[in-house]
Amino acid sequence: MTRYDFCKGHGTQNTFVLLPDLDGTRYPDLTAENVRALCDRNTGLSADGMIRIAPVDAAPPAPDHDTGSQPGGSAEWFMDYRNADGSLAEMCGNGVRVMARYLWETGVVRTRDLTIATRGGDRALTRDEEGLITVGMGTPRALNGPTASFVAVGSHTYPAVPVFVPNPHAVVFVDSVAEAGVLESAPGLSPAETFPDGANIEFVTEVAPGHVKLRVWERGVGETRSCGTGVCAAAWAAMRRDVAPRGSTYVVDVPGGRLTVTERPDGQLLLTGPAELGVRGVVTDIRPADIM
Amino acid sequence: MTRYDFCKGHGTQNTFVLLPDLDGTRYPDLTAENVRALCDRNTGLSADGMIRIAPVDAAPPAPDHDTGSQPGGSAEWFMDYRNADGSLAEMCGNGVRVMARYLWETGVVRTRDLTIATRGGDRALTRDEEGLITVGMGTPRALNGPTASFVAVGSHTYPAVPVFVPNPHAVVFVDSVAEAGVLESAPGLSPAETFPDGANIEFVTEVAPGHVKLRVWERGVGETRSCGTGVCAAAWAAMRRDVAPRGSTYVVDVPGGRLTVTERPDGQLLLTGPAELGVRGVVTDIRPADIM
Repeated sequence: MTRYDFCKGHGTQNTFVLLPDLDGTRYPDLTAENVRALCDRNTGLSADGMIRIAPVDAAPPAPDHDTGSQPGGSAEWFMDYRNADGSLAEMCGNGVRVMARYLWETGVVRTRDLTIATRGGDRALTRDEEGLITVGMGTPRALNGPTASFVAVGSHTYPAVPVFVPNPHAVVFVDSVAEAGVLESAPGLSPAETFPDGANIEFVTEVAPGHVKLRVWERGVGETRSCGTGVCAAAWAAMRRDVAPRGSTYVVDVPGGRLTVTERPDGQLLLTGPAELGVRGVVTDIRPADIM
Repeated sequence: MTRYDFCKGHGTQNTFVLLPDLDGTRYPDLTAENVRALCDRNTGLSADGMIRIAPVDAAPPAPDHDTGSQPGGSAEWFMDYRNADGSLAEMCGNGVRVMARYLWETGVVRTRDLTIATRGGDRALTRDEEGLITVGMGTPRALNGPTASFVAVGSHTYPAVPVFVPNPHAVVFVDSVAEAGVLESAPGLSPAETFPDGANIEFVTEVAPGHVKLRVWERGVGETRSCGTGVCAAAWAAMRRDVAPRGSTYVVDVPGGRLTVTERPDGQLLLTGPAELGVRGVVTDIRPADIM
């Protein structure tokens, strides 16, 4: 059977199985079932998603919207990102930073700047002296429907700010992030016409001026330790609420750590934070049945 | 460096890295640091604990109390159990069931009954036609101190039942397991003389007669998906509260699944439930620094 050479990694506890496929030929048959088996919390390596690292010409992305590419950036590497449930995903702000870390650490990429192609367009990445990695996340937009938006938890209904990064988010400002209680099922979301595909939901509270804290509910996943686009959506909504000038940097604490979001003068958001690599190895038997 | 052949497994989402060491010579230098690296949620294989499977003569246990051995049971295999933080542990009710599953599935053990040696004494295991695995968990005892016991969460204080399995537990009966809210720090526990080493805390609610549901806070870990001794402590406390006759079986739902607890006529508890195996492979580089 196929052997999977892997490296575990995370960004603010958003966890990933990296599958380096540097010549783009190793995993022609990477099924959703095998992605699920590799990412499963209990029976797999436990990750929020899987990133196959492929040469850009072996697996060209088909960007239907470009969000964050820099002029002149020419991507050599493609992030073939899959959700833990095996479905394809466009982009992951923490995942792409972990992939960049892998390319730098292993010496595959030797330049300080790096552009990675994703299904959501090219992404420009840089790293600083402390090892923090920054990725361009594009320009969010708020799209209010004909009526105001709301998130409901139990019997409580909160006003929400819809933000598209470009995936949909509903940002809720609360007095305390513990306020929403134990989230065992998806909070309610309305109106349906504003969120035809559902949304991730961020419960955000201010820690200090320019510094917020959040909990996030990811659609199809549940409450998670971090979410790159959710952090951008929350920071952007907080900047609008605070009437912060362009160029502002907000600190965002998530359950898994700390990120910062800077709004460039052109409106693009930059997401900055740690990206860590972990154990490397080989999965030789992907399903329990393979043992016998 | 050492290569770690591993198999991931879980029992009601209590997760384990199994390290088969069938001749007992492979990991003479298994440090706490390496156990932590293998079990780390973000940078490792993500597990609540690590189980080295060793021949009993290569790593003899030193039981200071026998809880659950059957007369005539002669263990061939030793469960060298480590907590995710690298510390040694005596026993783990879900872990020993997963280890039994591994020995049966791989054909190392071909008998239907099996005795596994642990630091907490020998444990007798059986499996049924559905693949559910039962382990003898010994006889709990309640040890009330000179005063009643209490668990405090936020501003609320609950009466608690101290139960020793033999590790210490405080069982709290609540109207709803969501009542304790988001547990971000250890609940308070008193009096100190009843719990000199702290305790795991179970919030238990009745679903139906003979059927309870619980959430568990494990000392040194936090809220977890399951806890074998916690399930036994909760069932035992509920049986006492209900004045259930010896021989009763209680169903216990935990966040990670369903277990049953039977109190034998001699007072010993039997813990029954699923034990699943997952991916197998090899960790070749245990620390990120090994990459360079």
